Amino acid sequence: MNNSFFSKFTPKETKFFPILTEMADVILVASDLIIECVQNNNHELAIEYYKKIKEQEKKGDKLSAKVFDELNSTFITPFDREDIHHLADKIDDVTDYINSCAKKIVLYNPKQIPAKAVEIAKLIREDAIAIQKAVNELDVLKKNSNKIKEYCLELKVIENKADDVYENFLIDLFENQKDAVEIIKMKEIMSELEKATDAAEHVGKIIKTIIVKYA
Amino acid sequence: MNNSFFSKFTPKETKFFPILTEMADVILVASDLIIECVQNNNHELAIEYYKKIKEQEKKGDKLSAKVFDELNSTFITPFDREDIHHLADKIDDVTDYINSCAKKIVLYNPKQIPAKAVEIAKLIREDAIAIQKAVNELDVLKKNSNKIKEYCLELKVIENKADDVYENFLIDLFENQKDAVEIIKMKEIMSELEKATDAAEHVGKIIKTIIVKYA
Amino acid sequence: MNNSFFSKFTPKETKFFPILTEMADVILVASDLIIECVQNNNHELAIEYYKKIKEQEKKGDKLSAKVFDELNSTFITPFDREDIHHLADKIDDVTDYINSCAKKIVLYNPKQIPAKAVEIAKLIREDAIAIQKAVNELDVLKKNSNKIKEYCLELKVIENKADDVYENFLIDLFENQKDAVEIIKMKEIMSELEKATDAAEHVGKIIKTIIVKYA
Repeated sequence: MNNSFFSKFTPKETKFFPILTEMADVILVASDLIIECVQNNNHELAIEYYKKIKEQEKKGDKLSAKVFDELNSTFITPFDREDIHHLADKIDDVTDYINSCAKKIVLYNPKQIPAKAVEIAKLIREDAIAIQKAVNELDVLKKNSNKIKEYCLELKVIENKADDVYENFLIDLFENQKDAVEIIKMKEIMSELEKATDAAEHVGKIIKTIIVKYA
Repeated sequence: MNNSFFSKFTPKETKFFPILTEMADVILVASDLIIECVQNNNHELAIEYYKKIKEQEKKGDKLSAKVFDELNSTFITPFDREDIHHLADKIDDVTDYINSCAKKIVLYNPKQIPAKAVEIAKLIREDAIAIQKAVNELDVLKKNSNKIKEYCLELKVIENKADDVYENFLIDLFENQKDAVEIIKMKEIMSELEKATDAAEHVGKIIKTIIVKYA
Repeated sequence: MNNSFFSKFTPKETKFFPILTEMADVILVASDLIIECVQNNNHELAIEYYKKIKEQEKKGDKLSAKVFDELNSTFITPFDREDIHHLADKIDDVTDYINSCAKKIVLYNPKQIPAKAVEIAKLIREDAIAIQKAVNELDVLKKNSNKIKEYCLELKVIENKADDVYENFLIDLFENQKDAVEIIKMKEIMSELEKATDAAEHVGKIIKTIIVKYA
């Protein structure tokens, strides 16, 4: 049977989900790059990694803009327009903080990248995977709301771990680093990584808000 | 007469208000602890106070999660679900900043806690009381909207006072403290306290937004 | 014909737009003042400029409060009440950051105001004009949504330019300034200016969200 008649009424809005998934993929690529960047601890290489991360950041921006354009041209959306907009914005924030970290490594040129940067960078990678999973379930929100809530909880757990790493880094920094300028540099570089995990937790909060409204 | 039939239809949503009240109580307990903590100006004691404040912060988190769970299981809510969610989140922020202040005192271990920290900590206590009062009137929003607006204004006035204290602290800090590392430490510790009063003002703004929509 | 009957039903909500326009005007005045302030690079003059900018900041606050009061007393609004509230809040943020910059110049009293401060201050002036234009089209949102989107894009472009200036300032600062306290001071003063351009971009994002919902 030709179901072209019915397919016309198939919700067109499912196109939002692939874009959000792509945005989560961008975080994953960027997190792999920042892991390598902080592991290498070399200014020349950092410049190269920053270029590559900047590309991902731009890709994220474009995808975010695409979500906005789609929202403008789509009559029926799966959730409230502003929720999708908000979610896309916040997913983009995670990539932005990874980019800010790489940028500060390049701009500040610290004598040393803190060893603990690798740990937080790896936690951001875990965030990327949890966000991917959560976003992939959004189109079956009602059915899988418990699963999605678990991913959101995971984002919270990861953020707590990143907090601990960051705290230990700070204790060590203030005890052992006597050069105030290096303290400023390292603290801010690490802070961007920590903020990336905050932003990822925030993504989880927005998804939870969507669940509150629609599941 | 047995009114079990009607009681089934009694709005169950009033359960949100006691949780929000409990969250305001948590701010009050935490503010009392941070006042004592900064008054004592002693690292060993600070560690103890931080533990107690951390407990309050966790309690706040749990209450915030409870609001979320209730929102998920309640059909009728007094306001839009996302407004309640948003309000709970922001009330929780005040406690989070008190906790961050205590944490930074412990992690940074400054040579001295600024004297003006006591002043801002006491202003946060005033915030806690104003938030308690405002939240306690939310269930009679329409009747008491003018009273609630006054509490919101009070939160704004307190924030302005905290700003002044923080400004005077900064002038003094940059004039008299020559150790850059101590400047970083004290400035950030005080900044967390100041942010707590900002967050409290933000709570007022959200409540005002709710009034705009429902009163 | 006397149309007093019909005029009663004329949407009263158009009164929101003149207030938003006035708020954009406040940013323009404040940006002119901060340009002069950073060009003069003199502590005594900075105190005078700060007083004048503070007046604008207070004017912005009053206008923002006026929007809130109007929302409370108006039955029909052009957009959702909370969108107007949100927009007014964020326009106010731009003026707030200009004010924070002036305040920090006065409080921190740096040995020198960075030359690049003038560049960012001028970009904030461009923001002010773009926000004025966008706000002026809001009452004909449906007709002029493409034009408004252009102004929002402009706010994004300006923010990118400000980012570049700020980055070059940071590279220079960390390479050439050896006094950690001066680094802290100059970095924060410049950061407030950069945040003003961020806030202006945010205004654009909110306007875009309104377009998503209503155009």
